[in-house]
Amino acid sequence: MNQIDMDQAKNQKKTVLKETDSDSKYQDGLVIRPIDNGTVIDHITAGEALNVLRILGITGSTVERISVATNVMSKEMGQKDLVKIENRELAQQEVDRIALIAPQASINIVRNRVVIEKSVVSNPEELVGVVKCPNPCCITNANEPVSTRFYVQQNVLICSYCDWHIEKNIHSYI
Amino acid sequence: MNQIDMDQAKNQKKTVLKETDSDSKYQDGLVIRPIDNGTVIDHITAGEALNVLRILGITGSTVERISVATNVMSKEMGQKDLVKIENRELAQQEVDRIALIAPQASINIVRNRVVIEKSVVSNPEELVGVVKCPNPCCITNANEPVSTRFYVQQNVLICSYCDWHIEKNIHSYI
Repeated sequence: MNQIDMDQAKNQKKTVLKETDSDSKYQDGLVIRPIDNGTVIDHITAGEALNVLRILGITGSTVERISVATNVMSKEMGQKDLVKIENRELAQQEVDRIALIAPQASINIVRNRVVIEKSVVSNPEELVGVVKCPNPCCITNANEPVSTRFYVQQNVLICSYCDWHIEKNIHSYI
Repeated sequence: MNQIDMDQAKNQKKTVLKETDSDSKYQDGLVIRPIDNGTVIDHITAGEALNVLRILGITGSTVERISVATNVMSKEMGQKDLVKIENRELAQQEVDRIALIAPQASINIVRNRVVIEKSVVSNPEELVGVVKCPNPCCITNANEPVSTRFYVQQNVLICSYCDWHIEKNIHSYI
C-alpha cells in the first residue's frame, strides 16, 4: 500500500469513526446521514432556518427527524442555512411562505434516496391568508370575515386593503 | 491498487463530495464540519433540541453558527438529539436549565478543535429563579418581589411556596 493509499485508508477509518457514538466526531465532524424520504431545503437565507421550521409548524418538542445547519459556508451565497426533514413533503402554501423569508431557497423532494423533484421557490404575485397585516386599523384585523391579501413586489408586501407595506421582518407576520 | 484500496479511494472521493455544495450530498449525507470553538451538547433527550435552543435564547433569526440533529439513532439512548453551537460556552445556569429537559445530556466545550471539558448535566437540588410556577395563586405570581424556588426530586419539581408539582412539559415553564 503506497502513501496515498495509506492516507485514504486512514481517512476511511476516520469516516467510520464519524458515524459512531464516539467522541471522535467532535474532532472529525458529524455526518448527518442522508434521508431516505423527505425534503431538503437548501440555500436558505443565512440565519433563517429556525423561522423556516416555525413556518412548517416545527417548534418545541419535535417528533420529526430533522437536521439543521445555520450560517454555513456556501460557494454561491457566502453563507446559507440548510434544513432536512424526513418523511415530509411540503405543500405549495408552505413553499410560498418559505419563499417570503428565503427567496433563494431550493426545495428537493427525496424518495427512496433519490431526488425526484428539485425546484427553486418563487414569490407568488399575490398572497391570500398567508401574512397578517401589521396595521391595527386594517379591516383584516377588525374581526370581519376577510382574509388578508397582499401583493408581492420585489420582496415588499403591500396590503390590498390598507396599502400597508411590509419590507422588513416579514417572518414575524407569517 | 487492489479492490479494497479501490473501495477506499471511492469512499474517500464520496467524502470529498460530501463537503462540496453539489447535489451529491443528498445521496451521500451531509458533513457538518467540526467546530473550532464552542459547545457540543450531546445525548439530548430525543425531540428536545429546539427547546434546548430556546433555553439558550436561540430562536427566530440566528446569527450563531449552529447545527442541530433531532431523533437520530444512538447506541446508548435509542434516539437522541444533538446541538452544536460555535463560539459559545454555556453558563452554569444554562446548563442547569438544560438538565431539566435533557437529564442525560453531556456538554463538551471545544477550544481550538480540542474537547477541553466534558461533563454530564445534573439536576441541582434546588432551582431559584429558573422555573415559573404554574399555580396562578402562588405568591411568586402575585407581583411580589419573590423569586420562584423549586425543589428537584427525581425529575419532579416542587414549588417551595405552594407545593405545586411539575411533572410534565417542564420546558414550557422554563
